[in-house]
Amino acid sequence: MLLRLGYDIQFDLPFPIAVVAMLNVHPSRAADLQAPDEVRVEPATSTDSYIDSFGNRCTRFAAQSGPLRLSNSTLIYDSGFADPISLGAREVPVQELPHDVLRYLYSSRYCEVDRFLDIAGNLFGNSPQGWPRVQAVCDWVQANVTFGYPFASPTKTALDVYADRKGVCRDFQHLAITFCRCLNIPARYATGYLGDIGVPPVPPMDFSAWFEVYLQDRWWTFDARNNKPRIGRVLMATGRDAADVAITTSFGTSWLTSFTVTAEEVVGEKNATAQ
Amino acid sequence: MLLRLGYDIQFDLPFPIAVVAMLNVHPSRAADLQAPDEVRVEPATSTDSYIDSFGNRCTRFAAQSGPLRLSNSTLIYDSGFADPISLGAREVPVQELPHDVLRYLYSSRYCEVDRFLDIAGNLFGNSPQGWPRVQAVCDWVQANVTFGYPFASPTKTALDVYADRKGVCRDFQHLAITFCRCLNIPARYATGYLGDIGVPPVPPMDFSAWFEVYLQDRWWTFDARNNKPRIGRVLMATGRDAADVAITTSFGTSWLTSFTVTAEEVVGEKNATAQ
Amino acid sequence: MLLRLGYDIQFDLPFPIAVVAMLNVHPSRAADLQAPDEVRVEPATSTDSYIDSFGNRCTRFAAQSGPLRLSNSTLIYDSGFADPISLGAREVPVQELPHDVLRYLYSSRYCEVDRFLDIAGNLFGNSPQGWPRVQAVCDWVQANVTFGYPFASPTKTALDVYADRKGVCRDFQHLAITFCRCLNIPARYATGYLGDIGVPPVPPMDFSAWFEVYLQDRWWTFDARNNKPRIGRVLMATGRDAADVAITTSFGTSWLTSFTVTAEEVVGEKNATAQ
Amino acid sequence: MLLRLGYDIQFDLPFPIAVVAMLNVHPSRAADLQAPDEVRVEPATSTDSYIDSFGNRCTRFAAQSGPLRLSNSTLIYDSGFADPISLGAREVPVQELPHDVLRYLYSSRYCEVDRFLDIAGNLFGNSPQGWPRVQAVCDWVQANVTFGYPFASPTKTALDVYADRKGVCRDFQHLAITFCRCLNIPARYATGYLGDIGVPPVPPMDFSAWFEVYLQDRWWTFDARNNKPRIGRVLMATGRDAADVAITTSFGTSWLTSFTVTAEEVVGEKNATAQ
Repeated sequence: MLLRLGYDIQFDLPFPIAVVAMLNVHPSRAADLQAPDEVRVEPATSTDSYIDSFGNRCTRFAAQSGPLRLSNSTLIYDSGFADPISLGAREVPVQELPHDVLRYLYSSRYCEVDRFLDIAGNLFGNSPQGWPRVQAVCDWVQANVTFGYPFASPTKTALDVYADRKGVCRDFQHLAITFCRCLNIPARYATGYLGDIGVPPVPPMDFSAWFEVYLQDRWWTFDARNNKPRIGRVLMATGRDAADVAITTSFGTSWLTSFTVTAEEVVGEKNATAQ
Repeated sequence: MLLRLGYDIQFDLPFPIAVVAMLNVHPSRAADLQAPDEVRVEPATSTDSYIDSFGNRCTRFAAQSGPLRLSNSTLIYDSGFADPISLGAREVPVQELPHDVLRYLYSSRYCEVDRFLDIAGNLFGNSPQGWPRVQAVCDWVQANVTFGYPFASPTKTALDVYADRKGVCRDFQHLAITFCRCLNIPARYATGYLGDIGVPPVPPMDFSAWFEVYLQDRWWTFDARNNKPRIGRVLMATGRDAADVAITTSFGTSWLTSFTVTAEEVVGEKNATAQ
Repeated sequence: MLLRLGYDIQFDLPFPIAVVAMLNVHPSRAADLQAPDEVRVEPATSTDSYIDSFGNRCTRFAAQSGPLRLSNSTLIYDSGFADPISLGAREVPVQELPHDVLRYLYSSRYCEVDRFLDIAGNLFGNSPQGWPRVQAVCDWVQANVTFGYPFASPTKTALDVYADRKGVCRDFQHLAITFCRCLNIPARYATGYLGDIGVPPVPPMDFSAWFEVYLQDRWWTFDARNNKPRIGRVLMATGRDAADVAITTSFGTSWLTSFTVTAEEVVGEKNATAQ
Repeated sequence: MLLRLGYDIQFDLPFPIAVVAMLNVHPSRAADLQAPDEVRVEPATSTDSYIDSFGNRCTRFAAQSGPLRLSNSTLIYDSGFADPISLGAREVPVQELPHDVLRYLYSSRYCEVDRFLDIAGNLFGNSPQGWPRVQAVCDWVQANVTFGYPFASPTKTALDVYADRKGVCRDFQHLAITFCRCLNIPARYATGYLGDIGVPPVPPMDFSAWFEVYLQDRWWTFDARNNKPRIGRVLMATGRDAADVAITTSFGTSWLTSFTVTAEEVVGEKNATAQ
């Protein structure tokens, strides 16, 4: 299956500022790219590309005041398989986890593990361990939190979501991540493309959020918002929570003026090329 | 100058749990050690030592239920110089910062950069940039926050400190770190030994917290609590905030039963050895 | 000047619940009414009208499951004068305040006076006392908080507004009220009709919020959102903050399905009658 | 049974301030007093006594800078009966509650009813209504919250208590009150004397907090901290939460220098008199 991915994000900047963008496909998917995946910056400026401490590709540049446009369109090969399920994937005792996985057990900006230990224990302490326990977390979050765009807030933490039971995509994941960490299951935030393949169309597209948990010997995809396997996720970045993987970070004032995202299957196209 | 460092920390564990300790001297000070620096665990158990993603040495092990004791005593050479001051150290534009420094500009568990942008701008936007701006941050924090052990709380964030103006060592640093990050100055939390060399004795000793900011081409030590250069800091760990560098993290219930820390100058001792 | 006031609020109720409505004109304005001011409830049900501890008229009733409609239209005489200004109105020392005014100095749900004492002291401690100090509070709030409907949140407190600098009408007032109380100036929340008389039209109408402070010997109207005298306010209720004066309180689940408010000058109409 | 009650509270004041004290026995207990119950203020100053909007006796005065002492000792007759239990006391539908009871259903400073609706529903929605439901609330709070003086914080809300599961007397009551209100059971905060009659001695004495719920046709005493009937409570004040009934409120800076409270049975004393 071939997917066309793209975005067009425009800002107005009152002053020159530095910008960091996480708009590339994740390095783990680089081999699937069928076209270049470069962040196009207008007005043209020199950019600096690097891998951050979480393994994400980042693009950094100095932007002048005035309009700023970040855009791209690329093509990527996707297996077309839905998120894998492995009901027998076991929890790994903390003392046996890979060292670089341990950091996903700690508190982070939007995931106050330190404030959820009892809540998580009460809710999930009796669930069977491993995959079913993570599934129980997702089921609870999906059943108890109401989705709505008006509930979006950049400062909303897992505790806010738990109390108020309202949120957008990222809020569902933050709450689920926090529960998992309290249960000693490493969990990290993921952001990327998720088109509406195999599900009812959901315009307008936005980037999506899901999360990953470490079971047995690898990271697995979970999604407390949709809570069922989906086809066509394309990972862009993972981190402790949304604070680590903002699509764009402006180190100064910026006003978003336009935002479009594309992620769709390329059907019946013989010679697909990136636009 | 030779310093004797040591600790004796005892827990009672109702159940077996995994523990991660950050009780070693920081790798950057390893060459100064004059005696072995190993975390002694009783009852004896196999431990696993590794460097985390922030560059700190960690010790991980599975602890049985019952009493647990972590202890050590070592010797370290110290220059005896106070924290350096470099009034001319300039701020580095975000687009020129080393890649691995950028993460210290983002929000973290106890440092809600996203909620302080206006507050920090109002308070420090007119301070001269660079070293004097960081000094202005420390001066403000020290002048406006009241120190007191009863004000300690494991969930207290920079916003709590800012509103309530009360806290312990770590709270002072969290607030100062958050201000710095809002001003686009990378800042990270530091924990380690700080004896009472050159200052009035302060028993009982505890581990101390300070912070570091990146100016010009390196990290510099600041301390919003004491707010003056000190002699004899021995760094153990740095991270985004206290959530990253807990001296010990228990992945399950533990009850602290005893806690002592030593950091003192070894005077007139000919053949000092670690106990 | 004659004003037509009205509202039409519709809910869908999954279960029978009790409802309290504060939809009447405030008793202090009852003499100005030119037509009946009764809350019409559909389906018809017996209602219970009473004055609460703050002096507001309330309507209470048991609602059946299914659709619920609250509506009314009435006429009120208004002086047509803008909010009065009295630059010389002095602050009253706390020990001389009327007893029933004292409660408006304390913390309440959305106004954490206990957490703002230092912040308020730093910002306004040097402003001249009395009216100019309250004006300084309003000026600061209006200048530093950005208005936007997407920023509305039923749990947002003054501290949230202060940190995030975003909000709707009620948030501006909550922050200003909190500052005033910290300065020992009694302040209370007010809700009512505010049409667009003398200002550019602002459809669609909603109920509005402002606040009152006690200076010299009476309560005065201030409005940290609009921050200039307005014509045609019709008070409905006052309380410590929005928690005390919700237009409707549903003691159980209710879904708002429709909401319209009217407040406009009746011009050139000879025999105006309530619809 | 005769109880001796008393207190001696001393402050140092850097500046003259107004003070409001709620140090009298509640008007509902006035008839039981066997000796005068006046707040003695030193240095002597004229005081103003009044009943606030919750029905509590308050004493207000202007205090000069320097030392301030509030003290008294009195005698009160007590039935010697423990808090009554009435398992059959039924919940009153909101539409039938007395008007002045309704305010104890709303959110207040430390009781965020608006953020607990789902949490309370999940925990207690299946408990039998009336007295057993309130008892279930108290049982849950006592079982899940750990008591400790170091956990005291003047800004701690019910949500903080729920997340962190630690607190002092008032925190237990705030959480229980919030749960009750969410369940449409009016609940209010109570403060007063509670000696150690019939229980192991607990020096040093402090004023105590409990709460009251409205069932059937009256207010009943509950205590989520002790969670069993006690002898010898002497009510001083009730309010929505601790923000309404601070023993002393200083409208400006004050430093507490000394604090003692007495509440003990007068045994074998023939001619007891107030000291």
